[in-house]
Amino acid sequence: MPQDVTFDLPFDTPVSEHLEYARARHLRWIWDMGLVRSTAGFEEYKSWDLPLAAARTYPYASADDMVVLMNWFSLAFLFDDQFDAGQPDRADRIAEVARELIVTPLRPAGSRPRVVCPITLAWAEVWNSLSAGMSLTWQTRFAASWGRFLVAHCEEVDLAARGLAGTLDLEEYALFRRRTVGIHHSIDAGERSRGFEVPPQAMAHPLMERMRDLAADTIGFMNDIHSFERERRRGDGHNLIAVLHREGHGSWQEAAQQAYRMTTECLQEYLELEARVPRMCDELRLDEDERTRVRMGVEAIQHWINGNYEWALVSGRYAAAKEGPVATAELAGRGSVDDLLAV
Amino acid sequence: MPQDVTFDLPFDTPVSEHLEYARARHLRWIWDMGLVRSTAGFEEYKSWDLPLAAARTYPYASADDMVVLMNWFSLAFLFDDQFDAGQPDRADRIAEVARELIVTPLRPAGSRPRVVCPITLAWAEVWNSLSAGMSLTWQTRFAASWGRFLVAHCEEVDLAARGLAGTLDLEEYALFRRRTVGIHHSIDAGERSRGFEVPPQAMAHPLMERMRDLAADTIGFMNDIHSFERERRRGDGHNLIAVLHREGHGSWQEAAQQAYRMTTECLQEYLELEARVPRMCDELRLDEDERTRVRMGVEAIQHWINGNYEWALVSGRYAAAKEGPVATAELAGRGSVDDLLAV
Repeated sequence: MPQDVTFDLPFDTPVSEHLEYARARHLRWIWDMGLVRSTAGFEEYKSWDLPLAAARTYPYASADDMVVLMNWFSLAFLFDDQFDAGQPDRADRIAEVARELIVTPLRPAGSRPRVVCPITLAWAEVWNSLSAGMSLTWQTRFAASWGRFLVAHCEEVDLAARGLAGTLDLEEYALFRRRTVGIHHSIDAGERSRGFEVPPQAMAHPLMERMRDLAADTIGFMNDIHSFERERRRGDGHNLIAVLHREGHGSWQEAAQQAYRMTTECLQEYLELEARVPRMCDELRLDEDERTRVRMGVEAIQHWINGNYEWALVSGRYAAAKEGPVATAELAGRGSVDDLLAV
Repeated sequence: MPQDVTFDLPFDTPVSEHLEYARARHLRWIWDMGLVRSTAGFEEYKSWDLPLAAARTYPYASADDMVVLMNWFSLAFLFDDQFDAGQPDRADRIAEVARELIVTPLRPAGSRPRVVCPITLAWAEVWNSLSAGMSLTWQTRFAASWGRFLVAHCEEVDLAARGLAGTLDLEEYALFRRRTVGIHHSIDAGERSRGFEVPPQAMAHPLMERMRDLAADTIGFMNDIHSFERERRRGDGHNLIAVLHREGHGSWQEAAQQAYRMTTECLQEYLELEARVPRMCDELRLDEDERTRVRMGVEAIQHWINGNYEWALVSGRYAAAKEGPVATAELAGRGSVDDLLAV
């Protein structure tokens, strides 16, 4: 299933004007922080073009904040690849580092990590900037969204380490994917990127909760389609197409078509709910300023659905054909060429 | 400084009618769960009478929920005592267990712990009941409050393990105490105990945030006064009276008097803010039902300030004079007679 599967998305979202400036600063930062440790790792990292993902998903961030958001993306994506199938006890180190990443937003900003490695040091620095100026309520929401994602990531690694990656049925996988895709905290960060907050009573409304879940499902399934070749090369069984194929939904091609239909159904339901937002604002008796912040919160979701999509079509991360040390490492079950969990 | 220092609290709070029934079920549960492992540990535990604390702080819980709340108190208080000054590397095990306790509310309820010991197994079971019927917003708030407390507890243990318990100045200590006292999540649980939720926009209001902080300060400082003899016996330097004495606020008696004044000042400021709650409800344009839930949220704070106070006056946990194996263990720097962090 190729990376160039296209979807018809009804959003037209901008790209940050700070992309080039912020990318240059960001690429220096990841060397300084030890987030790349080899030329091969750096070449692979550059080919993903995460700066473009940040510039598309957070188009209104200031130049300085755009660098922070790129820095955050780098540590999250690089951490995601640290499992090594040849070392099952690596799962314990991943859990240890993940738990440090979880507690960072629960400490006063600026605290030093208790578990030290390039990933945790980078996150402590990023969180210091990412939390600046945001309310306790937002920090609480972000911390829980981020923590739920990282806990789910550890469960994914634990399943892989025990050789159980391919054992979830379709319903279990769909719920699991919603947790592993990491969209809730990514949408939360949209508020930070534009310096606003969705009113708490709107964020707590079942409509908004369901919209966030559906955005996560849409993006997670879309990602499973676009990253299918990469994940097959890496032996990763956590992919919607693989689950559908295993569950008897026909050939690989048919499983891929079914995955496509499921994705568009999630998107369709999301769009239907989006149309009900004005009624929710009436129900909550929101004033004009609060309605504006709800609208910006919805835009943050749209920026993620569309921005992530546009980036995935061109990112080298999901390239079907790959050669060299990174492909060799992936074929051997190693998630990455650089070990970022060592001191 | 004796346990019988009294305060003039302007709240008259009820005691649960389910105290005796729930206490009996709870005491069987802690044996079944391995939360006491010796007769000496059980005698000590019974002398604290945590069931009375739960019955005073959550007076309106149902009989079944009262058992759950007592069960929760037991694991939290017993975990609090697991540091052993003679084994500084014990701090790493405490951090490992604390992080498991932090991630439990971030997983789907009913999940099995990744770090297994009596404390984590007990918490997974309790959380399953404690989270039942509560919104995602409440669960998010509870998880963050609980996580902030446990991270602060680990910092306290780390300072003790490195011999640095007595190095915080007064201002640092006051902020630290607000985090280690564990009141924010305890107040959150008040909503669960009566089956309601404070409207999110009220909970996010600076007035409510400040009231919660002041309740935490009041209860933390009060606890430092009532537990002073116990903590001196245990060699615990994290106590307001000890900090004031070290910072040159006169004799022990004078330091205790100063601690008393600081406590009543926090309480006074809390009461002044409480009087502004109706104006906050106007400002937020709350309807009658929402105002009722705000009032119940304020009552949850009052139940904690007064209920904890009434319990502390009579609990064997803070007894000045103590003999037998527990006192011997405490004098030797061991936090408890039973190790609850081993499998």
